[in-house]
Amino acid sequence: MPPLAIGGTPLYAVERLRSYLGMSDLWLKDDTRNPSASLKDRASMIAVILAGGKTVACASTGNAASSLAVQAAAVGLPCYIFVPYNAPRAKVVQLLMCGATVFAVNGSYDDAFDLCIEACDAFGWYNRNTGYNPYLVEGKKTVGLEIAEQLAWQVPDTVLVPTGDGCIISGVYRGFEDFYLLGMIERIPRLVAVQAEGSPAIVRALEGDGVVRACEAHTIADGISVGLPRNGTMAVQLARLTGVFAEPSGAASYAGLLRLLEGGKIARDERAVLLVTGSGLKSIDVVVETAGSVMPIAKGAEGMEMVKKMVQ
Amino acid sequence: MPPLAIGGTPLYAVERLRSYLGMSDLWLKDDTRNPSASLKDRASMIAVILAGGKTVACASTGNAASSLAVQAAAVGLPCYIFVPYNAPRAKVVQLLMCGATVFAVNGSYDDAFDLCIEACDAFGWYNRNTGYNPYLVEGKKTVGLEIAEQLAWQVPDTVLVPTGDGCIISGVYRGFEDFYLLGMIERIPRLVAVQAEGSPAIVRALEGDGVVRACEAHTIADGISVGLPRNGTMAVQLARLTGVFAEPSGAASYAGLLRLLEGGKIARDERAVLLVTGSGLKSIDVVVETAGSVMPIAKGAEGMEMVKKMVQ
Repeated sequence: MPPLAIGGTPLYAVERLRSYLGMSDLWLKDDTRNPSASLKDRASMIAVILAGGKTVACASTGNAASSLAVQAAAVGLPCYIFVPYNAPRAKVVQLLMCGATVFAVNGSYDDAFDLCIEACDAFGWYNRNTGYNPYLVEGKKTVGLEIAEQLAWQVPDTVLVPTGDGCIISGVYRGFEDFYLLGMIERIPRLVAVQAEGSPAIVRALEGDGVVRACEAHTIADGISVGLPRNGTMAVQLARLTGVFAEPSGAASYAGLLRLLEGGKIARDERAVLLVTGSGLKSIDVVVETAGSVMPIAKGAEGMEMVKKMVQ
Repeated sequence: MPPLAIGGTPLYAVERLRSYLGMSDLWLKDDTRNPSASLKDRASMIAVILAGGKTVACASTGNAASSLAVQAAAVGLPCYIFVPYNAPRAKVVQLLMCGATVFAVNGSYDDAFDLCIEACDAFGWYNRNTGYNPYLVEGKKTVGLEIAEQLAWQVPDTVLVPTGDGCIISGVYRGFEDFYLLGMIERIPRLVAVQAEGSPAIVRALEGDGVVRACEAHTIADGISVGLPRNGTMAVQLARLTGVFAEPSGAASYAGLLRLLEGGKIARDERAVLLVTGSGLKSIDVVVETAGSVMPIAKGAEGMEMVKKMVQ
């Protein structure tokens, strides 16, 4: 039973966004279009193949868990997910839908993570925890391979990557590196790790002594522990200019691009790629506040008058 | 500014579902993988192209509206959506995210529909109402074209299509018909219209005198006005056996297949295709009841003991 194929996600020429930003060679890699609507499918496909028929498990409330549940259902493996007791119901529903057993741990994400590791050891389950399993990067690298191929080997100058624990950006690098070592591309793009201001472990390390130190516990969690209001606004702006409905952490790459433009750290004629890592459909609640409001109108002739006033 | 490309959706060989049903040549066409996560993108792409720069509009709370909002954002057209005042917030958020103006009409879906028609006439907006615009079927037919191509021109015996007002199944037919008339396929598959028991307008017509008569008003609405509990169960079963997270009306084709199998109206060695028309991520609330529950456990050693008991 094969996993659900990625099949490659689109690289959009985002012409409206190009006009808006004055960037002539900007692209958007839309990883919302994967089977479980996030880039994490690229890693979970590898996990269910390498599991070799064993039960799979991970600790996550986010895209890693839903992609594992989806791929485990496709190939027919039992799947256990450990979440903190306060995990959002909407995200848990996806896991249950696909038949995963979901343990709601009366504790923090770290408690859930520790229990998952212990259970994998005790029962011989295959562990798909990001940052723990060294093979997952081999799945994630395919996003870099695809970008290179989609741009006919004329690789971008810059790729902007929403970054939490750094697993995705490592994967992107690995993809370009493979092609570079094979002589198929002339250089490896500059990769920009975009982190939320509230969880800047990697940014701090790069600006400091190069050593990554734990910030707060929530930085280990899936996604990038985003400062919600600002990234909600970014997600709305991105959706309005491209039609791509990104999750707030997925829209972080756009926020990062704006910051680079402000600071003059990216040229407007650079070939740049925004990586959008996951769909906003899984976190509707987060963007409700920033999405705007409906316009209440009456029905019939009275309603038509109201429409006329608002439109003109 | 081009619309967001469909790029073709996957046709899965659903091996676990084949084993479960004892059907050797069953396939699943996964139209949850479109830009706005439903088949309706195929029609909305046509609408935003034919609009020729004009404002676009439709009355819908469902996939038709979200696909129009997404595609209008991609190409840069103003977009007006008319919804009844009690439209689900989660579906409206998508529209607002993409910058559509959403009129919440203090009345029924029919009132919203009427106002939309009137406004299109008054302001010269391009009308993307399903069943009103004759060009949309030319977009929807691409799902038939893709199935034929993906099966290397050995077309299915049967295609099961979730059916509300019949627009999608007409499109599927049109696709196969085009290829048949061109001599590229040897026959047109048997198309099975799967309708909800609560809104059987087309089924009644086929079983009666062939004339389609209005049932209840909600049958005009987007989706197929599904009897929720039963189709929720079908969606869960489908997700667990395939990894595809279908909206309940999208899972209707699976419910229809089970009915045909029970009644001996489909052979187990037929080449059959289940068309899944939209993603369950947009209607999480609907499946919450049937998805099952999490298992609460303690943290630490006590939690590990609880896991052991549940797993063994």
